[in-house]
Amino acid sequence: MAAADASKPQIGLYGLAVMGQNLALNIADNGIPIAVCNRSKDKIAATVARAKAEGDLPLTGIDEVGDFVKALSKPRTVIILVKAGKPVDASIELLAEHMEEGDLIIDGGNEWFPNSVRRAEALAAKKIDFIGMGVSGGEEGARYGPSLMPGGPRAAYDRVEPILTKISAKTDSGPCVTYVGEIGAGNHVKMVHNGIEYGDMQLISETYEVLKTLGGLSNDDLAATFGEWNKGELESFLIEITAKIFQAKDDRGEDKTAYLVDKVLDKTGMKGTGRWTVQEAAERSVPSGTIAAALEARFLSGLKDERVEAAKIITGPTDMPAVDRAQLIDDVRQALYAAKICAYAQGMNIIREAARQNGWTVNLGECARIWKGGCIIRARFLDRIKSAYDRNADLANLLVDPEFAAEINSRQHAWRRVVSLAAACGIAVPALSASLAYLDQYRRARLPANLVQAQRDFFGSHTYDRTDGLTDKPVHSEWAKLAEAASGTAPAAAAAAAPAEEPKADA
Amino acid sequence: MAAADASKPQIGLYGLAVMGQNLALNIADNGIPIAVCNRSKDKIAATVARAKAEGDLPLTGIDEVGDFVKALSKPRTVIILVKAGKPVDASIELLAEHMEEGDLIIDGGNEWFPNSVRRAEALAAKKIDFIGMGVSGGEEGARYGPSLMPGGPRAAYDRVEPILTKISAKTDSGPCVTYVGEIGAGNHVKMVHNGIEYGDMQLISETYEVLKTLGGLSNDDLAATFGEWNKGELESFLIEITAKIFQAKDDRGEDKTAYLVDKVLDKTGMKGTGRWTVQEAAERSVPSGTIAAALEARFLSGLKDERVEAAKIITGPTDMPAVDRAQLIDDVRQALYAAKICAYAQGMNIIREAARQNGWTVNLGECARIWKGGCIIRARFLDRIKSAYDRNADLANLLVDPEFAAEINSRQHAWRRVVSLAAACGIAVPALSASLAYLDQYRRARLPANLVQAQRDFFGSHTYDRTDGLTDKPVHSEWAKLAEAASGTAPAAAAAAAPAEEPKADA
Repeated sequence: MAAADASKPQIGLYGLAVMGQNLALNIADNGIPIAVCNRSKDKIAATVARAKAEGDLPLTGIDEVGDFVKALSKPRTVIILVKAGKPVDASIELLAEHMEEGDLIIDGGNEWFPNSVRRAEALAAKKIDFIGMGVSGGEEGARYGPSLMPGGPRAAYDRVEPILTKISAKTDSGPCVTYVGEIGAGNHVKMVHNGIEYGDMQLISETYEVLKTLGGLSNDDLAATFGEWNKGELESFLIEITAKIFQAKDDRGEDKTAYLVDKVLDKTGMKGTGRWTVQEAAERSVPSGTIAAALEARFLSGLKDERVEAAKIITGPTDMPAVDRAQLIDDVRQALYAAKICAYAQGMNIIREAARQNGWTVNLGECARIWKGGCIIRARFLDRIKSAYDRNADLANLLVDPEFAAEINSRQHAWRRVVSLAAACGIAVPALSASLAYLDQYRRARLPANLVQAQRDFFGSHTYDRTDGLTDKPVHSEWAKLAEAASGTAPAAAAAAAPAEEPKADA
Repeated sequence: MAAADASKPQIGLYGLAVMGQNLALNIADNGIPIAVCNRSKDKIAATVARAKAEGDLPLTGIDEVGDFVKALSKPRTVIILVKAGKPVDASIELLAEHMEEGDLIIDGGNEWFPNSVRRAEALAAKKIDFIGMGVSGGEEGARYGPSLMPGGPRAAYDRVEPILTKISAKTDSGPCVTYVGEIGAGNHVKMVHNGIEYGDMQLISETYEVLKTLGGLSNDDLAATFGEWNKGELESFLIEITAKIFQAKDDRGEDKTAYLVDKVLDKTGMKGTGRWTVQEAAERSVPSGTIAAALEARFLSGLKDERVEAAKIITGPTDMPAVDRAQLIDDVRQALYAAKICAYAQGMNIIREAARQNGWTVNLGECARIWKGGCIIRARFLDRIKSAYDRNADLANLLVDPEFAAEINSRQHAWRRVVSLAAACGIAVPALSASLAYLDQYRRARLPANLVQAQRDFFGSHTYDRTDGLTDKPVHSEWAKLAEAASGTAPAAAAAAAPAEEPKADA
């Protein structure tokens, strides 16, 4: 274990499950001497064996946590890759005991961002730095190049930037890492990345449903269609794998010519990040209907038994119109692209609002750039988002970027045809239609919200602003009396005794 | 202050803002001697003066908290009506200091339900009972009959039931109070009530937009239409006041013949309960798209300046089709009714799931019954919900109740026409379309979620269940390899290096 300082491990990694093991090997593979440690010792040995097998990489396994920390060159850096929540707290406690002022802990898990803020504050008492870093790319990404979203003190980031740059995914726009922002920002951006991913996946599944049910496309047709789409503006990892999914044949059942996608039960699993994104959007008052619809579609998919029963009781349209298949495919492609813009616009605005409220300095264009490699949502399309924010860093919404606006304007007719047709035919397109509702509300100078506010003022004296600037203060009207005066009839008792929406009470 | 026990105040009320003052007078007006107290003394005097003016009601004002508590007959009951959050904690601390074993505190604010659970646990150490009680009906309801949603220990509820029954709103189905369930359940049911209210209001505003923009209805036409609707199955407080809103003329501006609704800015305010409902639905994995869409519409209404700018850049359809006005009005009426069923189905299921997870014994039919009076969402329609749960207390979803299913089946064609038309014409109907997507997913035995799950298995080895029961365990497939084998082409490098959606890591 004793070594000259120059040859001491430059970084440590604690937590050697799949992600940790692969990230450690990635670091070592980049010529950076690393020490690794884990609660159960067998994984340490396994990692050491892999390091040897994969090219005698500079990786040292150390069983005891104290020895592990002491083995690192100072100031020390340890990346934790354990399950989010309590295991992270436990690991930090273990490590911090042996660390000292100026050392750095990086948590690479999918963590709820306020937990990172809390941990950073606790570690600040010991003057130990803390970074919460989103790591996207799974096993293969961890080993060969993930997208990294670190948030924490700038100086701490600068110190580890050379290592993070080396191990990250590379694209024609540079390495997939940047200083995302202050503590919490990295976890937040990763969470929203996953929320956008929910939206992308749901939108693709809706295009599948429309093309299959209304267009009569076979799995072969679908494979060809998505393969074709992957050559154009929709080019992305998710479209690419979708094309492959429709090709795959079942290798388990008796009929080896059957398509595997048809053997997959229509129940989707989920982890926490999509749910968090929707809850966070609500918390920040950011409309995010596409992502919310995607989350709900996962919930509804889970109600398989209920759906089977409901299908027997609730009818749907039976007369399906004849459609021009080529036109439908083209309409659906345009609808998918346009709706996708909405999902990203929502996600970006969730990040921006959280950054504003938390005082983070997040660069949205850079977020798009570092998602270009390693991530599930990696796509050619992200260049367009980066460009939009390069043109205007203060862009209120991607929808009003001149290029995106032009794309929306030219595609909306196709998109409307798809949503209209699906509604008429009983095909659920929750995310396509929520995206359209998002567009049609956002581009509307005047919404019917005046009625909602009038109702609130009627029953709860919640007041309203006037359209004509007669006063600059909110006003209240006695609606029931004014209606009575206008109609010459007495208001009903119920209206006179209108209750308030929310009790107004203070002590 | 000294009085014989028999004449001692039977109940105390702390917090004399609008709600507290009116609820205290309501109690006294029902012949129940009450003592009142408040942090600032002037409100005590004001309440005493009102009690005298409104019929020499048996209400005693007491300035000092200790004296106030001691003046109550034992076991003591104090209702708190202060602002939710910290003021409630502060009030409980003040009161509990002077209370003893067997006494009861009832918080009547719009509280986030876990706060009630926490407070009940803290008070349990002193053997003081605690009830969190939703109070709906605002100022007038508090004075003349609110809907009350108490949750807490059954024995404590039983002790105060006679008082709560007397002061609550009365309908042909009885007093608007019931034992909602254990601690937290009362606040939860009130929260969801407000979430449903968001849905109802948004749906109505969308019908306004469609009728006005596509049907060309004037405010007079709208007043007549909503007035007519209020005579049928849509009969409700909200439809009633909507009719009146379209009658009211502006009494502030120069033109006294102008309609007031057109002077109301299209920005809606909000408090916390709608937001909480959406976050809670996500937490419990309950699809609630109608309510989520209503919340988002409020967020979008708030972006007035952005919308005005976006309207200049993003175009919409300009060719509006000629519509049969009578047909449109009838279609919109049916769409509103059907979508409303979805909003209630979602709300009821949020309550049911929270009850299941928290071990509460909530009776959904009773919830519908106590909302029949006092509440904003009071409606004839609630009888139908009560009946549905009377027919089947374990109903999975209101949509599959035979009567509601029949109503949905007969109305869905009109509903689909409205959503289709709006999508084609660029009229945002977020809640009407989210409701339709909810229906069309719920009634679908097979959704395209198989593709989403296949994607998850492709990139993250998340596994999937099979449709054919070949195995009863989730399985994983090597999609890229199977696609390669089927197509005879090599999988792209990107697919081979597919990253996982979520890093799987544990220490």
